[in-house]
Amino acid sequence: MPASPPDDVPVAFADPAYREAVIDLLAVIAYGEITAFERLAEDAKLAPTLEDKVALAAMATAELDKVGPLRDRITELGGEPFAAMAPFRSAVDLFHAHTAPADWPEGLVKAYVGDGLANDFYREIAAYLDPDTRDLVVSSVDTAGNAAFVVEKVREAIAADHRLGGRLALWGRRLMGEALTQAQRVAAERDALTALLAGGVDRPGLDLAAIGRMFTRLTERHAERMAELGLDS
Amino acid sequence: MPASPPDDVPVAFADPAYREAVIDLLAVIAYGEITAFERLAEDAKLAPTLEDKVALAAMATAELDKVGPLRDRITELGGEPFAAMAPFRSAVDLFHAHTAPADWPEGLVKAYVGDGLANDFYREIAAYLDPDTRDLVVSSVDTAGNAAFVVEKVREAIAADHRLGGRLALWGRRLMGEALTQAQRVAAERDALTALLAGGVDRPGLDLAAIGRMFTRLTERHAERMAELGLDS
Repeated sequence: MPASPPDDVPVAFADPAYREAVIDLLAVIAYGEITAFERLAEDAKLAPTLEDKVALAAMATAELDKVGPLRDRITELGGEPFAAMAPFRSAVDLFHAHTAPADWPEGLVKAYVGDGLANDFYREIAAYLDPDTRDLVVSSVDTAGNAAFVVEKVREAIAADHRLGGRLALWGRRLMGEALTQAQRVAAERDALTALLAGGVDRPGLDLAAIGRMFTRLTERHAERMAELGLDS
Repeated sequence: MPASPPDDVPVAFADPAYREAVIDLLAVIAYGEITAFERLAEDAKLAPTLEDKVALAAMATAELDKVGPLRDRITELGGEPFAAMAPFRSAVDLFHAHTAPADWPEGLVKAYVGDGLANDFYREIAAYLDPDTRDLVVSSVDTAGNAAFVVEKVREAIAADHRLGGRLALWGRRLMGEALTQAQRVAAERDALTALLAGGVDRPGLDLAAIGRMFTRLTERHAERMAELGLDS
């Protein structure tokens, strides 16, 4: 049932640039979830047992399940979901092309650390959005259910092969580096999206000092996740 | 909360061979769903558009979502789910190895026709089981939601390339042939599973004439599905 914009869209959307930026944000998250599905389904092939394979496959399906609400919301805001994702495909695809896991432990660390980093970033941004969009973004990046499985398996793998810890620590740094590289590329190309962080009507914004503090928090949480896996960061 | 068998398990399970056969059946269905997930996720790579890819990925996740209840039930019946799947891996894997789609239309036909055939077969068997198992099997093979998407896409592809119809008709026959070959292999190797069809305490069975009629129904439904796709069978 289509409703007229004033009834169901918050005041922030009176600003067309805000609407455009929110569509961008939802689209890049949705495309990220689609590719996360693809990569996790692919990495599941590396699993040493059928049970491990099914666990990673379940993480893949959890990612894909979040795409539907994002698509619906983009449509409600007047966007075409797959057209809206198009500008982000190259950056997200490059991230995955540059971080294809060589083996099962690398796949697990990527699933945990890469996903966690992206989710933290989107949660940080969500704080500056209208409440509906914020709730949608936060629920779209909730992957808490996966943590215990990955932590246990990575710790087991390191216990069985002590040299693995050094390699996986390097791998975690590479994931962080590639994520920053591609995020920066997106920020440089999508003015609407970066303007989002500057605030607007009824919304607080981020100054440079606040952006610096945000990156500090992201780095700290990355280090915490690496430590949970038993890895230096 | 573990309950003693007499309280929560129907009378049919007083027969240990029946319990073993039901575990076999649930395990082969579960392993079939796991591999269907893997194959659909793999075949999604052949999709011509991102939207098509997401549609096939959603079919993959629907398959994997059905594995959980089957695993739970195998555990309730005293089985170990992944050990129970082990005897069926080779037959199911061979089916997929022999029916790897060469392109997107072959992938769609396999998703629709191969899946439909397996589901019809399990539904036929389910009619001879205790009600709880029957309900679980029937809900585990329900994929009605996928039909419209596949039918539309295959018909579009045939309309765009008339030679494709002949190739896909052959492909459908090959899927049927491979499914029968591997089903026969499983039947030959798993006595408990085939004995299931012979009936038991409180359960009617199938005689040879009834098995013949079952195969006639399966063949007819296969032909109906091919016709829905616009293909000869």
